[in-house]
Amino acid sequence: MAKPEDMPPMTYRFLGRSGLRVSSISLGGWLTYGGHIDREGTYACMKAAYDCGVNFFDCAESYSEGDSEIVMGEAIKKYGWKRNDLVISTKIYWGECFGDNPANNKGLSRKHIIEGVDASLKRLGLEYVDLIYAHRPDRQTPMEETVRAFNHIINSGKAFYWGTSEWNADEIAQAWRYADKLGMIGPLMEQPAYNMLTREKVESEFAHLYPETGLGLTVFSPLKSGILSGKYKDGIPDDSRYAQTSLEFIKGYWNRTNKDTWNAIIEQVNRLQPIADKLGLKMTTLALAWVLKNPNVSSAITGASSAEQVYENCRAVAAVDKLTPEVMAEVDEILNNKPPEMTLRY
Amino acid sequence: MAKPEDMPPMTYRFLGRSGLRVSSISLGGWLTYGGHIDREGTYACMKAAYDCGVNFFDCAESYSEGDSEIVMGEAIKKYGWKRNDLVISTKIYWGECFGDNPANNKGLSRKHIIEGVDASLKRLGLEYVDLIYAHRPDRQTPMEETVRAFNHIINSGKAFYWGTSEWNADEIAQAWRYADKLGMIGPLMEQPAYNMLTREKVESEFAHLYPETGLGLTVFSPLKSGILSGKYKDGIPDDSRYAQTSLEFIKGYWNRTNKDTWNAIIEQVNRLQPIADKLGLKMTTLALAWVLKNPNVSSAITGASSAEQVYENCRAVAAVDKLTPEVMAEVDEILNNKPPEMTLRY
Amino acid sequence: MAKPEDMPPMTYRFLGRSGLRVSSISLGGWLTYGGHIDREGTYACMKAAYDCGVNFFDCAESYSEGDSEIVMGEAIKKYGWKRNDLVISTKIYWGECFGDNPANNKGLSRKHIIEGVDASLKRLGLEYVDLIYAHRPDRQTPMEETVRAFNHIINSGKAFYWGTSEWNADEIAQAWRYADKLGMIGPLMEQPAYNMLTREKVESEFAHLYPETGLGLTVFSPLKSGILSGKYKDGIPDDSRYAQTSLEFIKGYWNRTNKDTWNAIIEQVNRLQPIADKLGLKMTTLALAWVLKNPNVSSAITGASSAEQVYENCRAVAAVDKLTPEVMAEVDEILNNKPPEMTLRY
Amino acid sequence: MAKPEDMPPMTYRFLGRSGLRVSSISLGGWLTYGGHIDREGTYACMKAAYDCGVNFFDCAESYSEGDSEIVMGEAIKKYGWKRNDLVISTKIYWGECFGDNPANNKGLSRKHIIEGVDASLKRLGLEYVDLIYAHRPDRQTPMEETVRAFNHIINSGKAFYWGTSEWNADEIAQAWRYADKLGMIGPLMEQPAYNMLTREKVESEFAHLYPETGLGLTVFSPLKSGILSGKYKDGIPDDSRYAQTSLEFIKGYWNRTNKDTWNAIIEQVNRLQPIADKLGLKMTTLALAWVLKNPNVSSAITGASSAEQVYENCRAVAAVDKLTPEVMAEVDEILNNKPPEMTLRY
Repeated sequence: MAKPEDMPPMTYRFLGRSGLRVSSISLGGWLTYGGHIDREGTYACMKAAYDCGVNFFDCAESYSEGDSEIVMGEAIKKYGWKRNDLVISTKIYWGECFGDNPANNKGLSRKHIIEGVDASLKRLGLEYVDLIYAHRPDRQTPMEETVRAFNHIINSGKAFYWGTSEWNADEIAQAWRYADKLGMIGPLMEQPAYNMLTREKVESEFAHLYPETGLGLTVFSPLKSGILSGKYKDGIPDDSRYAQTSLEFIKGYWNRTNKDTWNAIIEQVNRLQPIADKLGLKMTTLALAWVLKNPNVSSAITGASSAEQVYENCRAVAAVDKLTPEVMAEVDEILNNKPPEMTLRY
Repeated sequence: MAKPEDMPPMTYRFLGRSGLRVSSISLGGWLTYGGHIDREGTYACMKAAYDCGVNFFDCAESYSEGDSEIVMGEAIKKYGWKRNDLVISTKIYWGECFGDNPANNKGLSRKHIIEGVDASLKRLGLEYVDLIYAHRPDRQTPMEETVRAFNHIINSGKAFYWGTSEWNADEIAQAWRYADKLGMIGPLMEQPAYNMLTREKVESEFAHLYPETGLGLTVFSPLKSGILSGKYKDGIPDDSRYAQTSLEFIKGYWNRTNKDTWNAIIEQVNRLQPIADKLGLKMTTLALAWVLKNPNVSSAITGASSAEQVYENCRAVAAVDKLTPEVMAEVDEILNNKPPEMTLRY
Repeated sequence: MAKPEDMPPMTYRFLGRSGLRVSSISLGGWLTYGGHIDREGTYACMKAAYDCGVNFFDCAESYSEGDSEIVMGEAIKKYGWKRNDLVISTKIYWGECFGDNPANNKGLSRKHIIEGVDASLKRLGLEYVDLIYAHRPDRQTPMEETVRAFNHIINSGKAFYWGTSEWNADEIAQAWRYADKLGMIGPLMEQPAYNMLTREKVESEFAHLYPETGLGLTVFSPLKSGILSGKYKDGIPDDSRYAQTSLEFIKGYWNRTNKDTWNAIIEQVNRLQPIADKLGLKMTTLALAWVLKNPNVSSAITGASSAEQVYENCRAVAAVDKLTPEVMAEVDEILNNKPPEMTLRY
Repeated sequence: MAKPEDMPPMTYRFLGRSGLRVSSISLGGWLTYGGHIDREGTYACMKAAYDCGVNFFDCAESYSEGDSEIVMGEAIKKYGWKRNDLVISTKIYWGECFGDNPANNKGLSRKHIIEGVDASLKRLGLEYVDLIYAHRPDRQTPMEETVRAFNHIINSGKAFYWGTSEWNADEIAQAWRYADKLGMIGPLMEQPAYNMLTREKVESEFAHLYPETGLGLTVFSPLKSGILSGKYKDGIPDDSRYAQTSLEFIKGYWNRTNKDTWNAIIEQVNRLQPIADKLGLKMTTLALAWVLKNPNVSSAITGASSAEQVYENCRAVAAVDKLTPEVMAEVDEILNNKPPEMTLRY
């Protein structure tokens, strides 16, 4: 499927307090590429994204046990994209699948960070990534060791910036404490889940960090595993055009969730539909645009199983301006989950 | 055309508070090499300059979209010049032409500085440049990121010194603030426009920086796009032996300039002619020597379309001593644009 | 001999205040591999250890004059073990055998550390070791030089962590003083002798270092050259199934020891036998488990001449829990060498 | 000529406050190797020195315009000496002969230090030198630039230690000031002239530096160009078995020296002869041993045109103990040039 002619131009945002610009909508390999989406399907999604102006492609050593990096790296080579046009990331934490002994293939030790990055670059077929993430906090490894190791990666020319994923505010602050003490580079960006139904961390817990550390956000799960697309409004289908893996993921979520809670969520999503209709937007577009409305979000990482989905996601950039203060207030009233505003002195 | 026998010996000056010595007259590739001057013409100009003792050749990634670096690099190889005899520079900022997505090919992010330098070195066919410049300030990239990235370039052995071009005094001071804080190397040199008609920045705004940071200057546009050569005294010719590109550049300047202002400038230049005549100098030589009279200028970067022009420019080094205090006072009276002297306590 | 089916699972411990995990029981090449144990014997011991979950293999440039590194490196290659599954160490100090002039092949000068590490890596056939040790303190080389050189090794990517072997507490503290002053990485681990008969250093002298520097221990000689295995209870045999080298080593020890002292030691060991019997443990297992009972011990480095011995040693991990406070008290009463407890304020 | 059987064993000394040990007698290439001594002659001298235990061979980029490094490097390769057995030095300052433009081939700029070291290593055929010297102070290059550049050389693995040659005490102290401020490595050793007739700098000017910076000395001209060998006691011969170059050097010295001064020096040297005779030493041996008597001297760099001379020089190590306090007092009385003792509080 070729890029629709009426596709809006992509927008780009600085990644936190840095000079790097990432596309507002980016494409992630989680649960898809290298997994239930085959080679050709991955290439097609990445090409569709590239054609829409997406420059940020998000990987991790653990996505599909490394296969995500392999096929995403193949696509970059196949289409002959220029390295300087791309922002490629990967994440280090879960590397158990690359070893036979779990002792040192997981976490944020100097050993796993350096070995993990070297292996990721080899799989990607690249000399460096732009962004390297600590995929989770590792409370068992001293923070100083982790900060030193990521700076070693940057000084070795293997990455340009480092950041975190699903860290707490205090962990990020602690990392900056060591970076400052040692004259090193602190974590630039954090990758949390952020969507209409998951707001606490991004809007409240991290509030101090934006002005104090220049933290930027690349958020995942902007549609809360598809719930915000409205596709589960009639329950979870036994089959679906969506990836089997995603389906199992959502089923797992559903299983872990109290039935009343699940129904309350679905009902809430259903109540958002009229707003989407009024604005002439699909629910998916409304949900993505809502995420991009937050100025601390540098990029919303989307998943997609087909070029069509990629195009649909990229349309969100044109919808951001439709979310006027009045619309946002309406949404907030339905969601009823806005964290109390924090008054920051600086 | 062979080097004239009566060519005066080149003089060399330390580049600011450093141990590097650059020829007072240097050769830049802006608007010429890789552009409207063909391969052979470029080689001829560079050889003429080298023969006159010019050791500093100035490039930028953006000059002729990289072609300037390519042909200047070819000349170095063609003539078998020794790397240690040369001071080669390039500048990073506008790399849009090297990518299909403008997001990260421009400015002073860590990504563009490192990717830009690597690409420049490849085009030049060199392992390192002597001088790497930030071609413009980038107010959108944090200064600390830029300072760290240029130090990374130096620590990687890809450049010996870094500096700026067309930065303001406060931006240079800010860069030094981060360099000092981090124990890093600050910007050594700045490349501003400087000529009889453009004095404010070099003579007033930067006055504090010379003693405080050891700033050196490599100035461009010493003839103000040829205006100071006197060649436009009868208006702008429809055609010219000068490069089409330059002509378009000066026409653009002319178009942007109020006609009365333009006439006033030309009349002022005409009034300088008798001084040149009295000293037995061409206007071009007087204007270049006047620039070199400023002890804060390490090198005047000249453009040239032919060996003949190169020789003419290089003669300026012998004229500097002719500019006695009395002559300088005469010139100042005509120019009437001397910035008020600043009294520095140290 | 294949791995016994009832082998307990290996346990792993963090190495001091780091994110690296080493197997509680590790295998060292001292006095054995590359020496009196031939190639095939070495491979067999290492394979047995690997099969039991041992991930830490301990070398030194001086073990069998480099041959230990060579054969241990061969085993790693032969079995195709993944580098990320292994923790490999070596130690620098005695490199006289690698030169014809003793002046600079010994000690902890920058020259010997860098030359020694490069040569060790070549012998091992590895690009890096995980752990690099200063095999002894060098009171003639300034501490600052040594700290800088080990940091140079880490920054060059040739090791992940550095430590010491048989250093005094004040020497380790001094090394940290320079590391702190220079913002460098301090020594993470120390390798002392530690066993039921040798407790002073680990239990008393180093007590302050554990909380203050995060020191981890990889201890050698956990069986005191076999004395604690009970095999010398009837004196030293003229011949032995144990390696000739080890035998000579113990004979040397015996010769240097006053006969009454020797007899007292043997008698003491004999008195431990009933405790082992009561717990259903061999004396060797009791002695190794006792060492692992100390939480500051990250790994007990064992020697072995056969796969059988390796298996026996690895069984100790399952015996640690049998050493209840009551058992430990009984042992202490027999040993009568517990250093007085130090009260640390923090 | 084979090594005499009665050659005393070489002694080694730590180079200042470092862990590096250099032979008390070392061999320098100045005025000889690559110059008037041919390839075979150079190989013979170096082999003789190596056979006597000399481990330190001293070069400079300027000795015989680089040819000294080439032939000394050839000798190392020819004899298959182990790199770790050798201490190789070179010095950077005068590289004019390696370029066609003198502007940047001399002095201590970052450019010349890095380009000079790379060229020296290529000529030597080595990956690193042990010692890199600044051959002279460069008052025109900022000290901070020089300190940073030598640290860059050490961090790049191209040298282990850096030092100076013929610097003043204040210049060395200034270099340490920047090294301390930046957490960098300061200059370890200085190479001054030192002999019975030239004492001021080593014994007085540098006195504070030994305890305060740990300065070590590798001294040249221990025989004051042969004057102290007694060979000029009857005037300067028209011809000589000594190298023509050396002869011209001494003639130049003689020409620059007032005849009365020259005669006074020769007479003084003649008065030392009876002391040498009494001790059963040649004048050369006495003079060299006297230099080694100073505990701040790590090595006396000797020149030699033949294996025989090398052997003679190396004998000095056995004569040091013969210089009792009484003998030293006798010598001082004749020399009458002992600098007043400085009282240092620490």
